[in-house]
Amino acid sequence: MTYAQAGVDIDAGDALVERIKPLARMTRIAEVMEDVGGFAGLCRVPTDIDEPVLVSGTDGVGTKLKVAFATGKHDTIGQDLVAMCVNDVLTCGARPLFFLDYFATGKLDVDVAESVVRGIANACKISGCALLGGETAELPQMYAAGEYDLAGFAVGVVGRKSLVDGKRTAAGDKVVGLASSGLHSNGYALARRVLAPGHGAFAERPAELGGASIGETLLEPTRLYAPAVKAALAAGLDVRAMCHVTGGGLPGNLPRVLPEGLGIALVASWPRPPVFDLIAQRGPVEETELRRTFNLGVGYVFVVPPEQEERLAAVMSEAGFPSFPLGTVIAVDPQTEFEERVRFSEPGGPGAS
Amino acid sequence: MTYAQAGVDIDAGDALVERIKPLARMTRIAEVMEDVGGFAGLCRVPTDIDEPVLVSGTDGVGTKLKVAFATGKHDTIGQDLVAMCVNDVLTCGARPLFFLDYFATGKLDVDVAESVVRGIANACKISGCALLGGETAELPQMYAAGEYDLAGFAVGVVGRKSLVDGKRTAAGDKVVGLASSGLHSNGYALARRVLAPGHGAFAERPAELGGASIGETLLEPTRLYAPAVKAALAAGLDVRAMCHVTGGGLPGNLPRVLPEGLGIALVASWPRPPVFDLIAQRGPVEETELRRTFNLGVGYVFVVPPEQEERLAAVMSEAGFPSFPLGTVIAVDPQTEFEERVRFSEPGGPGAS
Repeated sequence: MTYAQAGVDIDAGDALVERIKPLARMTRIAEVMEDVGGFAGLCRVPTDIDEPVLVSGTDGVGTKLKVAFATGKHDTIGQDLVAMCVNDVLTCGARPLFFLDYFATGKLDVDVAESVVRGIANACKISGCALLGGETAELPQMYAAGEYDLAGFAVGVVGRKSLVDGKRTAAGDKVVGLASSGLHSNGYALARRVLAPGHGAFAERPAELGGASIGETLLEPTRLYAPAVKAALAAGLDVRAMCHVTGGGLPGNLPRVLPEGLGIALVASWPRPPVFDLIAQRGPVEETELRRTFNLGVGYVFVVPPEQEERLAAVMSEAGFPSFPLGTVIAVDPQTEFEERVRFSEPGGPGAS
Repeated sequence: MTYAQAGVDIDAGDALVERIKPLARMTRIAEVMEDVGGFAGLCRVPTDIDEPVLVSGTDGVGTKLKVAFATGKHDTIGQDLVAMCVNDVLTCGARPLFFLDYFATGKLDVDVAESVVRGIANACKISGCALLGGETAELPQMYAAGEYDLAGFAVGVVGRKSLVDGKRTAAGDKVVGLASSGLHSNGYALARRVLAPGHGAFAERPAELGGASIGETLLEPTRLYAPAVKAALAAGLDVRAMCHVTGGGLPGNLPRVLPEGLGIALVASWPRPPVFDLIAQRGPVEETELRRTFNLGVGYVFVVPPEQEERLAAVMSEAGFPSFPLGTVIAVDPQTEFEERVRFSEPGGPGAS
C-alpha cells in the first residue's frame, strides 16, 4: 500500500509547485527575501515606515466557488480571494505587503489549480503585494469531484501615526462610495438559490442584465481597491475612515468604522447594478434583506471632511474608480442598535437609482 | 426568500464570535493593538529586533480532520493546525507573533467550532503567538454534514542577522532529533486507510499501541516546538539549521535546509513510536514508503556544531522535549537527487529501534 494508492498524488503537487513559481515571482516586491526559508516565506519590514504596525486579515470567497465550478471558469476566483482579504487590510490605511493562499481539493487537478493561482497572482500584482506562499492540500473524500475551497491571508503595514482608525470622524463628514463590480463575494448562497436554482440557469441571459449571462454576472470578480486607496493617501487627503462593504452589506459594515454616537444618513440613491433588482424580483427578496446581504453597488467607502469630498471624487476619477456621494455622518443616540446607525433615506425603495 | 433560508445563519456566526473573543484575548501579546481595526487584526512590529524580517507560512491538517469527525473529539485538531504552521515558521529562528485561522463548514455547529477554536487558542498561548483573527465560513452544500476544513496562517519575526538559514551548516555538524508525538498531521490518507478501513475501527485497541485506541493514537495532537526553539536560542546555542519534519518525512524535509553538496547520514536507530510499525505491518507498507510519508518519530530537527550536541540535549531535556542523536552532516555529490541526500544507515530496517 502506498500514499498514492491512498489518494494523494505527490507528483501532481510537485508539478503544480513548478507552475506556481513564475506566478509568485511576478508578484515579487523589494522586501521579499528569496532563496532563504525552506519552510516559510520571508519579507522584510519596510524601513521607510515609523513605528510599523502589521495589519492582517483572512477570508474565503464563500459559495461563489460554486459558480466557478458550474461554469468551469477558474481564472478569476483568485482575484475574489485576494480582494476579500486585501480590501479589509486597506481600511486601516495599510500598504499591502504579502499574501498567502490555501487551496484544498479532493483530487488535485493541476490545470484548475494553476488557473486559480494565476488569478491570485494577477490580483496580488495589482494590489502591490507579494504572493509569499501557499498550501495546496489534497484531501481525498472531503470535497466533491471537481470542487475545492480557498482561503486567503493578507498582511499589510502602516505607521502607527498614519493608522486610519475612524476616531477623528465627526458629524458632517462626507461619505463617498466606490462602485462595486457586482455582488463581489458575499450573499452567494442566496443569489445562487434565487438566480440559478437549476444547473442550466447560469447560461440564461435575462434582458435586465443587458446581454450578460447569469453565470457571467455572478462570476464578475470582486473589485480590488488597493490602487484607489493608494491614490487617496498619496494625494494627502484627510481620510478619516474607510470601510469594505462585505458580508452584512452597508448596515452591517459602515458602523464597524464609526465611533460611538455617530451614524450615517445615506443619500436617496446611487448607481445600483441591475443584478440586485433581478434578485429582489425573482426571490422575491425584500429590500431590508437585500440591504443586509448585498453591497447594492457600493464596494468600498471613504469618510472625509466635507471640504475634501470634491477632491476625493477627482482623485478617484483619475485613478479609474467610479465614485459617488453616499451620505453624511450624523450624530445618533449612543444606545442605537448597530445596524440602525445606518439610515436609509426612505423605507420604500432607497438605494435604487 | 432570505439569506437564512438559503442556508447561512448569521446569528450562529455572531454567537460564535462572542464565544471566541475571550479565547483570543487569552492569547494576547504586548504587540497586539486592540480596539482598532474593525476589519483586520493589528500587531506592532517588536521594537527590540534589528532589521526585522517577517516569516510567514500557511497550512492545513489534511484528513486528520476525518479522525476528529469520526471520534467526535474536536478540541485538539486546533493544536494540529497551529503546530503545522508555527513549526514551519520556527525553522528560520523566528519568534511567533500572530496566527489567523479559517474554519469552513456546510452548516455551522457553534459548539464544534468553539471546541476547534479553543484548541487553536490554547496552542497559540503555548507558542507565544496571538490569535489575531479568523474567518468562519458557512458554505451550504460544500461540506458533508458534520464536516469542516481548517486552514491556518502564522507570522513570526526575526532580526536579519539572526536568521537561521542553514548557510553555515558544514560537514561534521550534528543532527539532533526531537521526538514527535506520533503521526503529527501528515500521511493520514494512508494511515486511515490502513488502520481504520471501517468506521468502528477507531475504537480498536491493538496490543501494539499499549492500551491506546487507534482513534486516540491517530488523533494525538502535533507537538508544538516553539518552547524548544525558544530555549535553544535563549541558551545562545549556535543553531545552524532547523527542520520541521512534515509531509515527505525525513528524506523530503531535511534537504530543504541543507546547502548544496551536503547531506545527512542518519544513525541506525532512534525511538520509533509503535504506530509506524503497526502501519507497516497492516498495510503492508514498505519501509521506503513509510520513510517518505511519515515522520517516524522525529518531529523537529536541529543542526549544531559537534561540540554543542551535548549542550543542546541538556537544554532540550530541561525544556521538557525528548531528543536524540539523529545523524551527521556529510559531503555529497552536488548532483545527488534531493531525497538521496538523506542516507538511512541500512536498507533493511533503519530507523527501527
